[in-house]
Amino acid sequence: MQIIKPTLLVDKAQCQANIIKLKAKADKHNLTFRPHFKTHQNNEIAEIFRKHGIDKCTVSSVEMAEYFADYDWEDITIAFPVNILEIVSINKLNERINLNLLVESKETVKFLAEKINSPVGIFIKIDTGYHRTGIWAENVSMIEEVVEAIDSCEKLQLEGLLTHAGHSYHANNPAEIINIHKKSILLLKQLKARLNNDKLILSIGDTPTCSLADSFVGIDEIRCGNFVYYDLTQFYLGACRREEISVKIACPIVAMHSEREEVTIYGGGVHLSKEGLQIDDKVIFGEVAEISGKTITKDQYGYLQSLSQEHGIIKFPKGLPDALKIGDIISIFPVHSCMSANLLKDSTILI
Amino acid sequence: MQIIKPTLLVDKAQCQANIIKLKAKADKHNLTFRPHFKTHQNNEIAEIFRKHGIDKCTVSSVEMAEYFADYDWEDITIAFPVNILEIVSINKLNERINLNLLVESKETVKFLAEKINSPVGIFIKIDTGYHRTGIWAENVSMIEEVVEAIDSCEKLQLEGLLTHAGHSYHANNPAEIINIHKKSILLLKQLKARLNNDKLILSIGDTPTCSLADSFVGIDEIRCGNFVYYDLTQFYLGACRREEISVKIACPIVAMHSEREEVTIYGGGVHLSKEGLQIDDKVIFGEVAEISGKTITKDQYGYLQSLSQEHGIIKFPKGLPDALKIGDIISIFPVHSCMSANLLKDSTILI
Repeated sequence: MQIIKPTLLVDKAQCQANIIKLKAKADKHNLTFRPHFKTHQNNEIAEIFRKHGIDKCTVSSVEMAEYFADYDWEDITIAFPVNILEIVSINKLNERINLNLLVESKETVKFLAEKINSPVGIFIKIDTGYHRTGIWAENVSMIEEVVEAIDSCEKLQLEGLLTHAGHSYHANNPAEIINIHKKSILLLKQLKARLNNDKLILSIGDTPTCSLADSFVGIDEIRCGNFVYYDLTQFYLGACRREEISVKIACPIVAMHSEREEVTIYGGGVHLSKEGLQIDDKVIFGEVAEISGKTITKDQYGYLQSLSQEHGIIKFPKGLPDALKIGDIISIFPVHSCMSANLLKDSTILI
Repeated sequence: MQIIKPTLLVDKAQCQANIIKLKAKADKHNLTFRPHFKTHQNNEIAEIFRKHGIDKCTVSSVEMAEYFADYDWEDITIAFPVNILEIVSINKLNERINLNLLVESKETVKFLAEKINSPVGIFIKIDTGYHRTGIWAENVSMIEEVVEAIDSCEKLQLEGLLTHAGHSYHANNPAEIINIHKKSILLLKQLKARLNNDKLILSIGDTPTCSLADSFVGIDEIRCGNFVYYDLTQFYLGACRREEISVKIACPIVAMHSEREEVTIYGGGVHLSKEGLQIDDKVIFGEVAEISGKTITKDQYGYLQSLSQEHGIIKFPKGLPDALKIGDIISIFPVHSCMSANLLKDSTILI
């Protein structure tokens, strides 16, 4: 395998180990495991899940659901508020597979009630503290109105309540993540009790809480996705070990600037994404994992200090590693693997 | 035209006006106009350039050069330090078109001297203050060594000195941009004099300086690219008027949160990129340009306050505009049009 331009390298064995670990946790707690496939968007990775007995998945767009339906995934939740403008595609998809949709307003439910052609599963998006979207968990009257609107249409089958505790990404330490997990579950359970419907599935989904928590009482389903690759964001949150990061972006060195301890790589915002991560007093865009296929030593620590469209600048604070030269390949742990994997969809290699 | 998912809308007339304006400036100052096509990466936009008499272009990767060569662009500069690992593709491309490559080290020149099959143009990348990459303009001895290495190989034809004054993006006002422009030109001219070679082409390239400056004495070529679309970064730098921004990203509303003056759109980091822009005390990821195809009024000011993979959250500080509803289309001026255009390559419409 000769790498000549920015390429996402997936360590298949580590990726599989990450899957086995979460699957075991789901089994232990008697949870349905419906992993989010938005991280990898890749059928080869999906096949590893299938090999380990997983036959349900989550996606974040109709397009992604169509992609996986084409690869025989027959039970898919689109965990994104229904985009009513895509109703034609949604109806087509719903004829092919067991589809679940996400709603958070009466308006969308009414639209679906009029336009959906055949029975479809519905989850209500509940906000348990992230405040990105969804109905606030304690706004019971509004949730009841949505439930009522769903119940008044035979084709809309209320499956459950779904949340994404994305505020876990802003936690300062693992203990805070666990607290967010507990509060999020408590809010969902209280809501379920108030709605007085035992059959409602409670579905949660973020990687930090699913990786760190070991109590899921009352929860029926987990939908985390990032864990398949992990990344520096998860590592610095304490949600994974560095060795568990299963992706690296391999980039050729195109220039050396030893006078300022920097090298220029072919690898920029169009390959890694411009998502940065605040570490102490600086923002980084990646960290060096390997040089020419060899794990770096501690003395060789380097990080991606800036990105433009195609250029990346790597800083080696302790000086450039010996023998480093133009044409060598530097592999980088990404800040956010979902974003990098999306950008490098057509340049991904499983190793 | 019915928009149902995130789509890059290019205002063809404004795009053309931006091209005509820069072309007139190049003509006035007797400059070769070699616009950077990395911003649009789109043959339809390239055709507008061609219609206005432009027949040379700049790109930032071998792949992009191949794309435009396929559309009969026969004079292309790859303004990115040669990635020696792509020598096979470079040789193939060099047989088809007039190609210029960019070097900044003896090592790369020596590699090319050995491996290039036929004559190719060479520019030396000069750092005039951006400090991203290139040889520092006052490091004359090193530049002379590179020149010597080039001259010792018949197939390598030294064309000139090329800089990108990207530090103009960090300027606080237009006067600072003009100062950067002047200093950058001065450094190039001094260097050319010291190299004692009248034939060297001096090539400069960033959109802020090329948009604002009106003196280019001693310069032979401009390579700016972003001006074709412009964006909020350029607007807040003072490099363009808001009306000159010729791209918007149209996104469907999927949820409303009037209690916090927010709406959720289908449009996230995989559509707009996660590049933010600091405006006063906040970082924004875009600004609302239109609602359902109509330019917003001043009272309707809204900005993209956060992005995740597919979600965008728009804040309307003065409350949600009247009659706004789920399924409406909100069009957004991007922070960095090059990044958004790259992400939405397959979802671009010229209007």
